[in-house]
Amino acid sequence: MVPPNVRTASVETAVGTRAGKLSRSTDSTMLPVAVDAMGGDHAPSEIVAGALQANSDDGIPVLLVGRPDEMGDTGELDVLEASESIAMDAEPGSSVRRMKDSSLVRAAEAVRDGRASAMVSAGNTGATMASALLRMGRISGVARPAIATLIPTPSGSPTVLLDSGANAECQSEWLVQFAQMGAVFARHRLDVAEPRLALLSIGEEPSKGSPFVKEAFAALSDAEIRGATFIGNVEGRDLMTNTADVVITDGFTGNVALKTAEGALKALLTALLGAMGGRPEAVEAADVLAPELDTLYRKFHPDTYGGAMLLGVRGVCIISHGSTNALAMRNAIGVAADMVRADVVGHVTAAVST
Amino acid sequence: MVPPNVRTASVETAVGTRAGKLSRSTDSTMLPVAVDAMGGDHAPSEIVAGALQANSDDGIPVLLVGRPDEMGDTGELDVLEASESIAMDAEPGSSVRRMKDSSLVRAAEAVRDGRASAMVSAGNTGATMASALLRMGRISGVARPAIATLIPTPSGSPTVLLDSGANAECQSEWLVQFAQMGAVFARHRLDVAEPRLALLSIGEEPSKGSPFVKEAFAALSDAEIRGATFIGNVEGRDLMTNTADVVITDGFTGNVALKTAEGALKALLTALLGAMGGRPEAVEAADVLAPELDTLYRKFHPDTYGGAMLLGVRGVCIISHGSTNALAMRNAIGVAADMVRADVVGHVTAAVST
Repeated sequence: MVPPNVRTASVETAVGTRAGKLSRSTDSTMLPVAVDAMGGDHAPSEIVAGALQANSDDGIPVLLVGRPDEMGDTGELDVLEASESIAMDAEPGSSVRRMKDSSLVRAAEAVRDGRASAMVSAGNTGATMASALLRMGRISGVARPAIATLIPTPSGSPTVLLDSGANAECQSEWLVQFAQMGAVFARHRLDVAEPRLALLSIGEEPSKGSPFVKEAFAALSDAEIRGATFIGNVEGRDLMTNTADVVITDGFTGNVALKTAEGALKALLTALLGAMGGRPEAVEAADVLAPELDTLYRKFHPDTYGGAMLLGVRGVCIISHGSTNALAMRNAIGVAADMVRADVVGHVTAAVST
Repeated sequence: MVPPNVRTASVETAVGTRAGKLSRSTDSTMLPVAVDAMGGDHAPSEIVAGALQANSDDGIPVLLVGRPDEMGDTGELDVLEASESIAMDAEPGSSVRRMKDSSLVRAAEAVRDGRASAMVSAGNTGATMASALLRMGRISGVARPAIATLIPTPSGSPTVLLDSGANAECQSEWLVQFAQMGAVFARHRLDVAEPRLALLSIGEEPSKGSPFVKEAFAALSDAEIRGATFIGNVEGRDLMTNTADVVITDGFTGNVALKTAEGALKALLTALLGAMGGRPEAVEAADVLAPELDTLYRKFHPDTYGGAMLLGVRGVCIISHGSTNALAMRNAIGVAADMVRADVVGHVTAAVST
């Protein structure tokens, strides 16, 4: 077992501990995690480095997918050759249809064909979703898959935000499924026994929001979501508090909120570091505060949480930030393995069929 | 003239300077700013205190509106009696229709009737909008008024976000008017000669976003917005950078983004202050950094910017945060006076009639 502080950097209390699920020697009882070696701003070097760490330090079997001649030293990891690579800014749908020998498509096929237990990519988000959707397929009864992302909070558990970008336009009844899937995810990813679900709106009262949100409110109020409680509307300012465990929204609003939060944190950290680089006394004081600032930085950095999960497809698919480095990739692979072992896909299947 | 550093706290460079427009003796050439003395979490004491400061220190004539017996010492300020007060959580439309002798309705009527040049309230946002809309009326040709809010950035000028909450559901063509009004506001509020306008979406390409956003993109691309440049889509993470001067969106998305940004800043500041209150060495270092932290805090605090402006109604209407204290109210009254002197309402009228 990897100590919990590795996968979650210094925020093990924030994301819960998942002790006892992994062994330090490679786990021979699970299929490998397929890792898109070609995806991400720092691919393939940082991706391969993270995969090697996940394997050697965390005992997770990994299958690297991509062009072997570009990967450098891959140690004893298995490699699945794929000759093509989908660019970060390529049009997702057509790329996935056209580039059948791309690392993303091959990784999704490896899960579909039972050669891998999960896929992880830091590449083109849209193409990752499209590969997973087209090759693994949707879970029976799921209208649309959704991306679940963890938003840090100063104390307590992070908040699950979904859909954080899979569906730019949603129908209000899909949000009930997002709630069902998000509740399963919160239970297994964050160890929250009875997640509190909320709907993202612009006021707490059911009368607040767009007609779409009011419809979704009614649908969520009427729905039975097993093992979870719908607590009503929350606002953007509640995302980073301990108000709700899972916040439900359409993929457009969710993506705007996610990126606004990331941007705000970055702006404040930038300003903070700038302010501390001025007067000599300030520089000195900042040095003293280095441990506190480091903890804070890691707590609020997107890489800490090891990527988002595409919920609703027939396999574990972890979507990492484009900026993923080796540590973030190691975390993402660890999350993928945890989600496989917790059988999140099976639990989502059961949840949406009720 | 009040030194620019008063109204903008310590961020005068960030919000531009408006020197030379006010005199320290009360300006007899302008009608008073009507201030809703009853609105806000700290009303009436902090509101009255801010109004007194705006008058005595900044030379701005003020008309306090509300229940005189609750206001305490109002010095030499004029008072307009209003017997009712709309609660912070009251339903806006019906309250404004029913409570004809409320401070909000009377303040809006004072502007309509030529007794005041502007209105300012830290009370119920929806009721403030409804009062302004019903009593002052819409500018001819404006489909819907919109709220323009300033979002801080680490360096350079803040970003104007509109609509940040007036319209929970929008038609895509309204966003062209939001752009026209936002350009006028950026020019006069931030002294940006040729504002860069952008549309809030979930990717830079015109193909990204919901059908609504794609329609708005096309409409903004085709429109001629005098004295401004449409630079295309931006994402949530660009709100707090120097990418665009004005970011256009529907009121639902805008309100979620605004509150998410506020929540993220608050979460990080809370965590920062918490981290600095631990080890004795950290506490000491934080003391040394007090001037830097204070500047930072004020730069990113919503009160610094003196409230949002409701654009599209026939008068200046400034909407302040519910948490408004005396300094924030003084700032808001100063902004109201600036907007009156710059004839922003006249410029908006001209901009939407082109």
